[in-house]
Amino acid sequence: MSFRATILTLYPEMFPGSLDLSLAGKAREAGRWALETVQIRDFATGKHRNVDDTPAGGGAGMVMRADVLARAVDHAAPADDPRPRLLMSPRGRPLDQRRVRELATGPGAVILCGRFEGVDQRLIETRDLEEVSVGDYVLSGGEPAALVLLDAVIRLLPGVMGNDASGEEESFEGGLLEHPQYTRPQLFEERPIPDVLLSGNHARIAAWRRAEAEKLTRRRRPDLWMAYKDGGG
Amino acid sequence: MSFRATILTLYPEMFPGSLDLSLAGKAREAGRWALETVQIRDFATGKHRNVDDTPAGGGAGMVMRADVLARAVDHAAPADDPRPRLLMSPRGRPLDQRRVRELATGPGAVILCGRFEGVDQRLIETRDLEEVSVGDYVLSGGEPAALVLLDAVIRLLPGVMGNDASGEEESFEGGLLEHPQYTRPQLFEERPIPDVLLSGNHARIAAWRRAEAEKLTRRRRPDLWMAYKDGGG
Repeated sequence: MSFRATILTLYPEMFPGSLDLSLAGKAREAGRWALETVQIRDFATGKHRNVDDTPAGGGAGMVMRADVLARAVDHAAPADDPRPRLLMSPRGRPLDQRRVRELATGPGAVILCGRFEGVDQRLIETRDLEEVSVGDYVLSGGEPAALVLLDAVIRLLPGVMGNDASGEEESFEGGLLEHPQYTRPQLFEERPIPDVLLSGNHARIAAWRRAEAEKLTRRRRPDLWMAYKDGGG
Repeated sequence: MSFRATILTLYPEMFPGSLDLSLAGKAREAGRWALETVQIRDFATGKHRNVDDTPAGGGAGMVMRADVLARAVDHAAPADDPRPRLLMSPRGRPLDQRRVRELATGPGAVILCGRFEGVDQRLIETRDLEEVSVGDYVLSGGEPAALVLLDAVIRLLPGVMGNDASGEEESFEGGLLEHPQYTRPQLFEERPIPDVLLSGNHARIAAWRRAEAEKLTRRRRPDLWMAYKDGGG
């Protein structure tokens, strides 16, 4: 069974988008994952086929209707579908590499792309949607967020990356930002590659990289640094 | 002068991608922003036109070369180009709505899409690149991250959204997650819209929404909740 993604969206044309190229594109051709889009508007009724309406209690923007979305979700993922149902939303739990890895070991995902004004709360509750945020910023809709989530997941699917994957993964997941990297040429605009990296002394290189990663993390991400220290890094 | 984005990438075909539709697409047609892509490989030399090489000091993956990228950056953004130069990277400072708003009031952005194995540190230093992360997960490359960043910025450009923009913006930027939303039908699968929202009492509605937003933020995002309380929210 390969990973199966179903996207519920008002803009199916946005998919596969960037996922049609590079790693993800090749992996899809190889059958390592499959993509299906569902046009939410197909589940609207009435002469205007509205998918949204004004917020109860007033306020700006429009809210996506529970009844229309419920029909779309139930069509895409019947009650016995084992895949998690995600709602891309800035209200959601922040996506992290741990959740990405979990998703990559599962059967796929049903992803509802909300508009940022929101989705009727009763849909979220009755359909047990997991709200996921890709970051603390507001997007025009959930579609770019879904592309990011899938990109992160797909690269971890079995057979998608070569041997390169594991090393990087661990260094990111060690809880520190990545140390600086250098490659040829040895001299670039009069700046040499740091001597230690050319020393051939693996223990010294590892120590230097660890120290640089710690320095950067402490300065740039005090939140990660605290968690790293508390975890006994 | 409209907002001008220049993307340096190995996959120019990924752009404009999702930005060609919906709000961003209409805004581009209306001339509110412009997009240019630069193929990094065009600045490689040698018979294999390599853009990357193995990491100095050893390790998995490949590192993008400073000399090749420097030629691409200098071509795309001469020294007097006033636009910020961003490098999409999980090592970067986390993107937030404040930085999105700053970018949206500026002349544009030059965005380098790194591969996650990294970019030679000497390029970052000599070209004064601002490393930006869209979240704590690893992508196949900076391209999906660039699409997310631009989507967030473009919706804030003058004239792109209607009157809807300001309200949402402020509620997100108030430091709390958004309260639950409801819309018609009044009864969905035997669940009614909460009475208070139908009361017409604006003060009560505002108080209910505030309380719900606080409850959700406290539970789901202790980090935002702490910052909100410390800020005297």
